[in-house]
Amino acid sequence: MNKTNNDISFFFNPKSIAVVGASPVAGKLSNVIMNSLKEIGFPGRIYPVNPKYKSIDGMKCYQSATDIKDDMDVAILCIPASRVLGAMEDIVKKKVKGAIIVSAGFKEIGKDGAEIEEKLKKMSDETGIRIMGPNCLGVFDNISKIDTFFVLRERVKRPRAGGLTILSQSGSFAGTIMDELSAEGLGVARIINYGNRVDVGETDCLEYIAEDKSTKAVGIYMESVDDGRRFIEAARRCTAKKPVFAIKVGRHEAGMSAAKSHTGAIAGRYEIYSAAFKKAGIIEVKGYSEFLDACKVLSKQYPADGKRVLIVTDGGGMGASIADACNDFGLTVAEPSQDIKNLLASRLPPFCSVGNPIDLTGSVTDDDYVMAVKETMTEYDTTIIMVLWGPPTLTDKLIGMLADAAAELKKPVIICSPGGEYSHKRNKMFEEAGLPVFSSPEEAARAAAVLAKSSR
Amino acid sequence: MNKTNNDISFFFNPKSIAVVGASPVAGKLSNVIMNSLKEIGFPGRIYPVNPKYKSIDGMKCYQSATDIKDDMDVAILCIPASRVLGAMEDIVKKKVKGAIIVSAGFKEIGKDGAEIEEKLKKMSDETGIRIMGPNCLGVFDNISKIDTFFVLRERVKRPRAGGLTILSQSGSFAGTIMDELSAEGLGVARIINYGNRVDVGETDCLEYIAEDKSTKAVGIYMESVDDGRRFIEAARRCTAKKPVFAIKVGRHEAGMSAAKSHTGAIAGRYEIYSAAFKKAGIIEVKGYSEFLDACKVLSKQYPADGKRVLIVTDGGGMGASIADACNDFGLTVAEPSQDIKNLLASRLPPFCSVGNPIDLTGSVTDDDYVMAVKETMTEYDTTIIMVLWGPPTLTDKLIGMLADAAAELKKPVIICSPGGEYSHKRNKMFEEAGLPVFSSPEEAARAAAVLAKSSR
Repeated sequence: MNKTNNDISFFFNPKSIAVVGASPVAGKLSNVIMNSLKEIGFPGRIYPVNPKYKSIDGMKCYQSATDIKDDMDVAILCIPASRVLGAMEDIVKKKVKGAIIVSAGFKEIGKDGAEIEEKLKKMSDETGIRIMGPNCLGVFDNISKIDTFFVLRERVKRPRAGGLTILSQSGSFAGTIMDELSAEGLGVARIINYGNRVDVGETDCLEYIAEDKSTKAVGIYMESVDDGRRFIEAARRCTAKKPVFAIKVGRHEAGMSAAKSHTGAIAGRYEIYSAAFKKAGIIEVKGYSEFLDACKVLSKQYPADGKRVLIVTDGGGMGASIADACNDFGLTVAEPSQDIKNLLASRLPPFCSVGNPIDLTGSVTDDDYVMAVKETMTEYDTTIIMVLWGPPTLTDKLIGMLADAAAELKKPVIICSPGGEYSHKRNKMFEEAGLPVFSSPEEAARAAAVLAKSSR
Repeated sequence: MNKTNNDISFFFNPKSIAVVGASPVAGKLSNVIMNSLKEIGFPGRIYPVNPKYKSIDGMKCYQSATDIKDDMDVAILCIPASRVLGAMEDIVKKKVKGAIIVSAGFKEIGKDGAEIEEKLKKMSDETGIRIMGPNCLGVFDNISKIDTFFVLRERVKRPRAGGLTILSQSGSFAGTIMDELSAEGLGVARIINYGNRVDVGETDCLEYIAEDKSTKAVGIYMESVDDGRRFIEAARRCTAKKPVFAIKVGRHEAGMSAAKSHTGAIAGRYEIYSAAFKKAGIIEVKGYSEFLDACKVLSKQYPADGKRVLIVTDGGGMGASIADACNDFGLTVAEPSQDIKNLLASRLPPFCSVGNPIDLTGSVTDDDYVMAVKETMTEYDTTIIMVLWGPPTLTDKLIGMLADAAAELKKPVIICSPGGEYSHKRNKMFEEAGLPVFSSPEEAARAAAVLAKSSR
């Protein structure tokens, strides 16, 4: 067999999956995974493997992977680390294309675990079997309907289908962002977690995702890189087609030692990563929050042409906070042209401010917002619209009107609407209308900066 | 009369309030204010003033302030800017102690408005009448039950009573933070918005608040300062008694011009403010989000003794993100002592990581969290506990157990719990148990940094 073509597409459309260590006991990892596969509606065949049982959930249970007659694309291993090598020998014999080893207890716990990993790596190199993991959640795939995540659906909700793909070395990050994206109503194509990465890593996945028509934007959580040169090449090919953003965790010494202990990765110097991201056209994000901002704006918005930001607000002080934050993030907050200022001044009450921010004040109406945005945004790359709902003259119609204006002008619009319950409800409505919403000036500005970095 | 004693306490416990420009028409500013006063349960007497009406809402309506027989502490002016000077003459004649001018249309709109302000300032200097505003919301006071905010309660909820006092030059900031604090369930003593500040400003308020036993922590939103030297002196007296945090908006040129147009303030160079805050012992915060973080941790937590942070997590990758963010904010993330590490290692499964972060992994139990926190936090100033709710072994009991542990050890604890619906619900429960909760590693770290800055 031959690993040089790096084709791992079978992980994302397997016709058959063996669950090694399958169990009928509720709460067991393997049981959660079988349920996850059922819930998402995996269209292929599932083969439970466990010498302890004759059948599980009405399906025949096999003593060993070698007992299965049919061809097998993927085996998921949910057995103690000490038994993984033995099970893998059967899986190799059976000529399974790839294994997802969800079990923990390898490099991340020390020398004994590291030795097993070395043997797994050797097995993959010698036989050509592709291995995802160990110590991973595997594949969540809304396109091909695969869900090998062993986190309970009632605790970690699955996001709806959409254009975002996440590649993550960290399982906790993958599970948390999955739940968060679901709560934000954002659409996901795939979330892939490869954990200790003895074989399949971000580069293989990126090569696959670059060609994947379902994926419109890619986010990568990285503690270390599998193969620097190959990664940059793969990333370049991907960024030529769709935006890719990445976070390198372990930027400081403390973070680095934390990353090392949990997946056994030895994280290199941060600056090298930062330079590599730049070279590959990857948008670097610097924390979980910014990663989430990037998910929101890159999956919902038109790309920005540059870093000129227009701010429209109905509260002067809060608008000034956005201007401050935009400057902090390296964006340009320039005044509109004199022509536009004259036009705005002729259409707005005298106490409005027609600079940047445009301050429509507490006397604002729905129409004022739409007029100011439509007339002015053509001079800018991105528009941040702050809506404070205090003024009783503002109605819920504003939400649809702003969404229409954004769609008509095909320019990115970001909503910033801090506050309490009344705002929270309207923020959901903005999201349903397709506009990305942020609840603080700093988040909105940071998201605008991500958009600016995605410009060519 | 004499302004040198700067006693503005009558604004915060008036026995009588005249509402000049009172109206029975729903939605009018003055009508909203009369309702606000009624809703909060203002215990004094309200005197509507408007020549157009004989009575409003069952109360006698006066033609002019001079027609009122009783003594008058405060007059609220809700009339067009052009009629303010005339009304103020009556108010001075009536020897009202102070006026809150909510009307807009002054310095913020240009020369004509600035001239009226000059006259108001002169009037205050010559007669001793104290003026709050113009272009302001006035006073929200949960202790004396005053609410002159003209923002509708159904849109901007009022927070519960508590120890936080906010001083804000910006009305939009005051209204938004009010609503946000209410949604966060945080307790507020007073929110004061003085707008264009012809007379009463942050320094007068700070002098009053320094002596105010109801206030446990003070947050200031500042575009410019009224009297630099006096402000620093007042702030020093206040910071000796309780934590004071402040945001200077208009840190960059763009923000500065935005601040100028909306309250007419000329904001000075940012660095001067930053140095003055430091001199006065004020904790500087740099954005709306950090201001909110400070509200949360300073009103809910024990002060920190320094900047050593312990991180306890059940997800390695997410824990590494907190470590990164802590380093970004200048905190120290050092390993526990060898004794503690040995002790933790003896009590936790071998795949747990006993550094900093302590990673309890996805096999964590409620007891693991409490044991790790209790045994280790004594070596640190602040503990950030990240709870990812994926592991089915975690129960809701953990919330009370962690709150008890924090109370027992009298050290600050910050919860970080990102995710979706399941986490959001438990975050509310953490808040109800008195622990400050943040939904991203960066917010949690920033809040820990605010606590560290509050240490002496």
